[in-house]
Amino acid sequence: MKEPVPTAKRPRLEKRKQLTRLRLMKSAYALMADKGHTIVSIQEITSAADVGFGTFYTYFASKEAIYDALVEEVLEASGKVVDAATRRLDDPAERLSAGIQYTLMQADADPLWGKFLLSSLLAPSAATMGLGKFFMRDVQQGVAQGRFVLHDAEMSVVAVAGTLYAVLHRGAHGRGATAGAQGLADALAGAEGDPAVQSLPRRTAAQVLRMLGVPPPQATHLAARPLPPIAAFASFFDADLA
Amino acid sequence: MKEPVPTAKRPRLEKRKQLTRLRLMKSAYALMADKGHTIVSIQEITSAADVGFGTFYTYFASKEAIYDALVEEVLEASGKVVDAATRRLDDPAERLSAGIQYTLMQADADPLWGKFLLSSLLAPSAATMGLGKFFMRDVQQGVAQGRFVLHDAEMSVVAVAGTLYAVLHRGAHGRGATAGAQGLADALAGAEGDPAVQSLPRRTAAQVLRMLGVPPPQATHLAARPLPPIAAFASFFDADLA
Repeated sequence: MKEPVPTAKRPRLEKRKQLTRLRLMKSAYALMADKGHTIVSIQEITSAADVGFGTFYTYFASKEAIYDALVEEVLEASGKVVDAATRRLDDPAERLSAGIQYTLMQADADPLWGKFLLSSLLAPSAATMGLGKFFMRDVQQGVAQGRFVLHDAEMSVVAVAGTLYAVLHRGAHGRGATAGAQGLADALAGAEGDPAVQSLPRRTAAQVLRMLGVPPPQATHLAARPLPPIAAFASFFDADLA
Repeated sequence: MKEPVPTAKRPRLEKRKQLTRLRLMKSAYALMADKGHTIVSIQEITSAADVGFGTFYTYFASKEAIYDALVEEVLEASGKVVDAATRRLDDPAERLSAGIQYTLMQADADPLWGKFLLSSLLAPSAATMGLGKFFMRDVQQGVAQGRFVLHDAEMSVVAVAGTLYAVLHRGAHGRGATAGAQGLADALAGAEGDPAVQSLPRRTAAQVLRMLGVPPPQATHLAARPLPPIAAFASFFDADLA
């Protein structure tokens, strides 16, 4: 196939446009991670990107459009890395467990990414975009195979989203709700082994599996399985702006 | 008992000081409900209350102090109304279910209250102050009586806090995570009755009971029981500033 031969100028122009778009995305990403995407203004984004206000609209139709682009490009890119690593696991429960653990490990390794994920987790698009797509696919497969038993599917998904939100919130803002919860855990100590020896990602995965109807001993066992090897998470912006 | 006879001026001075304190509290309450308590500045609170900046420190040592006072006075006042209504229920599972339902109903009836509760739910003090105290007491009693079975007590409490957060978030910001969850619910429709005919507070209570190890049919039954009568929630500020 023949493509039109670019003039000497066009590739540079294209490159510059791509860089401007990435600068806007990177600024929006940091601001939205920090404040939540509804509070950030387009003015703040263009100021942080050192781009004229009107230029924003050359690249994005609205604040929602740049947010959607971030969810698609930043979160879905990570989702694909996790998906490539876990796709070969036959059991949707084990796949979901590994996906949750890798996601929490990524949030811990890259706090800005973790805060952006946090800000997106209860948004209307959470279940249909970014990482949510992979989560919902695994839940549906698990239900179809009888691996998950949901007594109220909608409430179960809301509860799992809320649980992951609370765990990520703790990572982003300190121990939070867990401070008091630890008091309860201490009061009940010895009831069931010592959860303190397990990592937070494993405990979270086990908790989510229990919430999806996996019997508790199986949930603990599945969450403790070795994780499949995974490719390095490339930092989306560093790679592209370098 | 003899109390010192007040001078003619003192009662008025005391009254004025109480009103200034309440004005600061009311401004902080609205701002913190709206933005989250960590983001609000003392300057914003005093401006909204129409009080000099320095005056703040006559009443509160810090931003954390006024936040703690709000949690204690506003949320705990509501908690006591719920507690008075549910105290006579012998079963801690039924008591917790009724408490959750009344709390969600109150958040729906008084959106500012709901947003303030939301902003406090994942704070470090959540489990030891305000409504959290009553919740933790019921959970501990339920565990002691074998009514609740927690496989990881700390994670369970974090998961319940996150679940309530996600449900309240939906009330405060629109359907949120539930929009996609409804898609899953539709895909699985018919599996287990029709949750749409049940109210959100009942479904949330049933979900929380399941997360605390109550067998699902019992959780549904308990959450559907008639609620005990409750006294009207007085709006904390309207009553006092009238």
